[in-house]
Amino acid sequence: MRNLYISKLWIWERRIIMDLIGIELEHAIEIIKDNVPKKSKAYELSLWDANKRILAEDIYSPIDNPPFDKSPLDGFALRSQDLKGASKANPIRISVVDVIYAGHYSLKELKAGQAARIMTGAPIPSGADCVIRLEDVEEEDGFIIVSKELKHHDNYCFKGEDVIKGTHILSKGEKITYIEQGILASLGIDRVKVYDKPRLALLVTGDELVAPGKELALGKIYDSNLTLLYSRLSELGFEPVIADYLPDNPSLAADKLKEVCKKADIIVTTGGVSVGDKDILHEVLPLMGAKRLFWRVNLKPGTPAMFATYEDRVMFHLSGNPFAAVTTFELLVRPYLAKVSKDKDLDLNRKKAILDNDFTKESKGRRFIRARETDGTVTIPQVSKHASGILSSMIGCNCLIDIPAGSPKLAKGTEVEIIYL
Amino acid sequence: MRNLYISKLWIWERRIIMDLIGIELEHAIEIIKDNVPKKSKAYELSLWDANKRILAEDIYSPIDNPPFDKSPLDGFALRSQDLKGASKANPIRISVVDVIYAGHYSLKELKAGQAARIMTGAPIPSGADCVIRLEDVEEEDGFIIVSKELKHHDNYCFKGEDVIKGTHILSKGEKITYIEQGILASLGIDRVKVYDKPRLALLVTGDELVAPGKELALGKIYDSNLTLLYSRLSELGFEPVIADYLPDNPSLAADKLKEVCKKADIIVTTGGVSVGDKDILHEVLPLMGAKRLFWRVNLKPGTPAMFATYEDRVMFHLSGNPFAAVTTFELLVRPYLAKVSKDKDLDLNRKKAILDNDFTKESKGRRFIRARETDGTVTIPQVSKHASGILSSMIGCNCLIDIPAGSPKLAKGTEVEIIYL
Repeated sequence: MRNLYISKLWIWERRIIMDLIGIELEHAIEIIKDNVPKKSKAYELSLWDANKRILAEDIYSPIDNPPFDKSPLDGFALRSQDLKGASKANPIRISVVDVIYAGHYSLKELKAGQAARIMTGAPIPSGADCVIRLEDVEEEDGFIIVSKELKHHDNYCFKGEDVIKGTHILSKGEKITYIEQGILASLGIDRVKVYDKPRLALLVTGDELVAPGKELALGKIYDSNLTLLYSRLSELGFEPVIADYLPDNPSLAADKLKEVCKKADIIVTTGGVSVGDKDILHEVLPLMGAKRLFWRVNLKPGTPAMFATYEDRVMFHLSGNPFAAVTTFELLVRPYLAKVSKDKDLDLNRKKAILDNDFTKESKGRRFIRARETDGTVTIPQVSKHASGILSSMIGCNCLIDIPAGSPKLAKGTEVEIIYL
Repeated sequence: MRNLYISKLWIWERRIIMDLIGIELEHAIEIIKDNVPKKSKAYELSLWDANKRILAEDIYSPIDNPPFDKSPLDGFALRSQDLKGASKANPIRISVVDVIYAGHYSLKELKAGQAARIMTGAPIPSGADCVIRLEDVEEEDGFIIVSKELKHHDNYCFKGEDVIKGTHILSKGEKITYIEQGILASLGIDRVKVYDKPRLALLVTGDELVAPGKELALGKIYDSNLTLLYSRLSELGFEPVIADYLPDNPSLAADKLKEVCKKADIIVTTGGVSVGDKDILHEVLPLMGAKRLFWRVNLKPGTPAMFATYEDRVMFHLSGNPFAAVTTFELLVRPYLAKVSKDKDLDLNRKKAILDNDFTKESKGRRFIRARETDGTVTIPQVSKHASGILSSMIGCNCLIDIPAGSPKLAKGTEVEIIYL
């Protein structure tokens, strides 16, 4: 019974101020992005480990590529002047003095009347200025018989033809995929400078939560938030350094959060942000000396989302309802991750799409619903229940529909704005 | 000079049979898929490690969810019959005998005239059959004053309302993303059975190749294939267990491949498959006792692709040209990976799209060109060179355009078929 009447008053108080301080999503994102550290750290790592990382340097080619004049085909390297006047009627006989395989080179300088058998990619020997195709000659015991003229530099690849040393190859801020890795490797580059990845901590609060695999006592339910957000962060390339439960006691929770802030740059919590008397984050933030920058965003689900800073750390406190948690994670945490890691692919990606079925609720406030977009049309999963706790309806969804405040029911065929997950 | 004339004859021989044995891509894929082992292995792992894996079991809910009757809101649990006749004019006074927080439960059975303060998600105490909102009562020193009637089960969430124990949740063959992980966690499941991932080995051949970071001697070039394919495989979720160079000597190469086959299920090599006398794979396969199932596919780039089996291993031997290697990797290796790992997302995903610029070459044979699809239109990167060795033009590309044999030049506006990368 302790605190019962006090807490009710406190709840009313909060309910009154609530509407005043709820902010628009766009404003929330501005505040969030303003708290990205101005300076980005970068470090060098092996090219092999750089997949999906963001380049922190401009890359210029350290070599000419190809690094030497080479043959583009299998044939014979020779001197074009030796073939002057060659024709079917006047075949010219050239002595084959060497064989050059790719990866090797010839020490001989070709003199008048001499050729070298050469393989695709092998360096053109000195003295030669063109290559004749294997198919275009007759071979005869150490000689070739050539019945056509060749021009200077026929079938001849020049050093630096693909890339000249010093050419600008990739820019700071570009994302490294396997293609960029292949390009860098082809220039001999095996280490690159990339931006640091922030370290994330994930903490879930709620006295009723039990970790999957453990036994359920009466009143307890299984927690899905830790698994959900851990997996989502991993999918986005940010495996949390800490994933744990937060005690339900404000002072213990504040101590734990302060500890976690030593090891992580970004802290994401779920639960404890609503207006009940177990919604401890309201007490935890002042206790630890964190600065709350906003509480409540004008959208559903996940209205009571909170954002705070503690020293140079940022803390996202999301609603404990799993669907609300994953929705506000996408809407609030991703834009921060995009900016701090300089990865534009993580930012909110909006597009127009045409509704493929009816949405039969009016939306007094702004609302985000899960859906699946295919080729410009978007389908809302038809499930018996649309309660926000039900994750099953999210299976196969790839976007959120952003339904503005004050929208009527939406009929099939309506153009809506979606955000890709 | 050794072998020069023999090799040339041999090359001619090969060139003659070449056209006879080139097969269509679709036939090649059939052969490849026919060699996927009939039996799939599966094993159990932690739910946390199951992201992007394929379920090898049907999942049924082991619990009712919610696991108990609970309150959907903050209020007071009570007996609806106690409120019979309640109205503004006839308020009813109920004694508050307990407080129940989420995660806890009440040991008391509510009797006539009794209520319990209850939080959202807390178990409804025995005796109570409904919950009245906090906002709908007046509180007065251990009592609440109620001025309205409630019906049996008003504001009441039933045990199993979301999921009844035994309900089919997920099917064998479904891919586990963060949503499925969240759903399984919410049911208390912390281990799942998933299909084995094949072990891949990646081997690159070519006497002219030097690993990035090392010094380039004359005649050598930097290898990009190992980095390219290693990174691509990693992006697809198959980090190779072996990534190495293959000796240029057929007998040493055969020995090495046999060794590698002990540690990997799928072997991918690049280089050595064309018709030059350093194209060692033609000798390596008979030496090791491997069975060649096809050589040459009617497409460019990467025509000389080869597919072989050795005991129960499969071996893909791709062209050494980097663009050819990555193209045939997508076209040949991915369909195998899709089938063996039962991951449909890996399979070739074709779509029609409208060309956004001209392709000014005629295509005698079938040809795959790199491009970027956005919203149904597809743009071919405009680069000065379209030589297949030049990877730079692949930056930002997300698809291959499949241009049929015998196609004329393609004008902007032409409908083409694309395959997503």
